[in-house]
Amino acid sequence: MARPARFSGLLSPVLTPYGEDLNPDAGRLVAHSRWLLAQNCDLAPFGTTSEGNSLSAGEKIELMEKLVAAGIDPARMMPGTGCCAISDTAAITRKAVELGCGGVLMLPPFYYKGVSDDGLFAAYAEVIQRVGSDDLRLYLYHIPQMSQTPISLGLIERLTKAYPETVVGIKDSSGDWANTKAMLDAGFDDFRVFVGSENFLLANMRHGGAGCISATANVNPAAIRRLYETWQENDAEDQQKALDELRAVFTGYAAIPALKAGVAHYSGDAGWTKVRPPLVATSAEDTNEMIGKLDALGFDMPGLREAQAAE
Amino acid sequence: MARPARFSGLLSPVLTPYGEDLNPDAGRLVAHSRWLLAQNCDLAPFGTTSEGNSLSAGEKIELMEKLVAAGIDPARMMPGTGCCAISDTAAITRKAVELGCGGVLMLPPFYYKGVSDDGLFAAYAEVIQRVGSDDLRLYLYHIPQMSQTPISLGLIERLTKAYPETVVGIKDSSGDWANTKAMLDAGFDDFRVFVGSENFLLANMRHGGAGCISATANVNPAAIRRLYETWQENDAEDQQKALDELRAVFTGYAAIPALKAGVAHYSGDAGWTKVRPPLVATSAEDTNEMIGKLDALGFDMPGLREAQAAE
Repeated sequence: MARPARFSGLLSPVLTPYGEDLNPDAGRLVAHSRWLLAQNCDLAPFGTTSEGNSLSAGEKIELMEKLVAAGIDPARMMPGTGCCAISDTAAITRKAVELGCGGVLMLPPFYYKGVSDDGLFAAYAEVIQRVGSDDLRLYLYHIPQMSQTPISLGLIERLTKAYPETVVGIKDSSGDWANTKAMLDAGFDDFRVFVGSENFLLANMRHGGAGCISATANVNPAAIRRLYETWQENDAEDQQKALDELRAVFTGYAAIPALKAGVAHYSGDAGWTKVRPPLVATSAEDTNEMIGKLDALGFDMPGLREAQAAE
Repeated sequence: MARPARFSGLLSPVLTPYGEDLNPDAGRLVAHSRWLLAQNCDLAPFGTTSEGNSLSAGEKIELMEKLVAAGIDPARMMPGTGCCAISDTAAITRKAVELGCGGVLMLPPFYYKGVSDDGLFAAYAEVIQRVGSDDLRLYLYHIPQMSQTPISLGLIERLTKAYPETVVGIKDSSGDWANTKAMLDAGFDDFRVFVGSENFLLANMRHGGAGCISATANVNPAAIRRLYETWQENDAEDQQKALDELRAVFTGYAAIPALKAGVAHYSGDAGWTKVRPPLVATSAEDTNEMIGKLDALGFDMPGLREAQAAE
C-alpha cells in the first residue's frame, strides 16, 4: 500500500445520526457520507460537529468499519481520533490506518489544562509510536475554545521535524485569522493548513492554504467546494459573501443541533434531529424560524432526500 | 445486596502508577490502595489526581476488577466514571455497580462548552437509565477549572428530585467556599457534600459537610482523617493550619507529578514517578527541593515502603 496522499480541498465533519436509543445510526451516516462525496466533499467523521467526543472509542471503530464496508473510499476519510487517553487515541488511529484512511484529525488530550508543549509533544509521540505505521498521516486539530489546549507554532515545528512524513497538516478552528496566517507563513514543508470555517476559505487559499474542514459543509458542500476550485476568478469575493451569509443562519443557533435540524428538514427524515446529551435538539420554533431564513436565501440541499431514501 | 450506605469521611483520588510502557500497573495500585485503606482513607480511583481521564474505559474497568480481585473492599470504592461519551460513562458505571462499589464520582460530559443544564440533566439521566440499577450511588463532580462544565445548584436540585436515592452527593473542587456553602445551605435531603481539598475540611465539617476527597490524601491521609474525626476538639484550627502547610508544598509544583514524586521517594520505588502524557514528571531538581521542604516539616509516609514491597 502506498502512503496516502496529503489532503487538500473541502472536508465535512460528518454529522452523526442517532436512533431512538441514542446509539449511532450507521445507515443514515453512510447515506449522508455518499451525498457529501458526490459533491466533491471529503469526510472528516468524528469531528467536533460530528459529536465525535460524545462517542466511545468502540463506537468510532465500529462506525469506521461500517462506512468502509458500505463501500465508502477510506482514502477520502480523515476521522477524528484524538481522545483524553492516549490508549483510546492510539486504538482508534490504528484502526483508521488499518482501514486505509487517508489521514486522521487528532485533538490533543484535552482534560488537563495548562499542560506544556513538552507534554503535548510526548502525547503525540506516544500515539505515533504505538500506531507504528508509515501509513499514518496525522493532521493536528487546533480548537482552543473547545479543547482549551492550543497547538502552538513551536509544537508544530517540533512535531514536523520529528515526524516529517507523519505530521502533515492542521485544522485551525480558532477563528483567529492571524493564527492561521502565522501557520501559513511559518513555511513548514508541504504542511497542509485547513481553516475550520469557510469564512476564511478565500483568505486561506490566497495565502497558500489547503482548503477547509467546516461544519456547514454538511449542508452547503457544493457552494463551498466551488469557491475552493475558483478562488482565483472574478466572482470569488461574491462567492465568499454568499457562503458567509448562509453560514450565519446556522451559527445563529447552537450550530450542531441546527445543522441536524436542517438535514432533517431537507431530507424529510425527522430522525436526524436527535443529538446526544449534553447537546439539546433545536426547538420547533427555532427550526421554523431558521428554515424561513434559509428559504429567503433560496437555500436547498438537492439530492439529499433521494440519498437518504436509498440507504 | 443492600443499597450501599452513603459515603462520609476521607477519600483519596488514588494515584495511578504506570509501567515502563506507560500502561497502568495494577500491582502498585493495589499496594497503594491497601496503604490508604489501612489509614481509614477510602478510595476514589480514576479521579483527576488519578489521571483518570488519561485512562480508557477498558483500562478503568480492568483496574477495578483487579482491585476487587485483590481483596479490596468495593464498598469503600467510589471510582470516577464520567467521560465525554455517555456510552463510556454508562459502561464504567455499570461495571462499578456490578462489582459492588459504594458509589461512583461522575464528571459531566466535558468536551462541549457552554452546554445547558437541560443538556447536563439529560446526560446524567441517560447514564442512570442505561445502568438501570437501584444499587447505583452517584456523586456529582464539580471541578469547573478542569471540566469547564460547572454543576449548578439548579441542576443538583433537579437531579436529586428526579433520583433521590441515586444522586446522593457531590465533590466540590471549585476551591470556592461560597459555592460549597451554598450547596450545604440548600438543604438537599441527606446530600453528601465533599470538599475537593482539605483546606476547606474544617469549614465543611462546621457547616454539616460529609468530609473531603483530596489529592493530598494520597500522601497525608492519617493527619487529614484525624481532623475529620476531631474537628470539634480544641486543636482543630492548629490541625487545619498544619494540613494547609503540608498541602502547599505539593501544590507549589504541578501537583499530580509532585505527589507521585513524593510516593516514589518515601516508598523507595522510582517507578512511581511515571505519568502519562500530557503530564510531565517532576524534574530531579524540583523533587530534591520539594523533599527538602517536606523534611523541614518533619513529613513522612510511614508504612508505605513495606506496603509497596508486599505486592
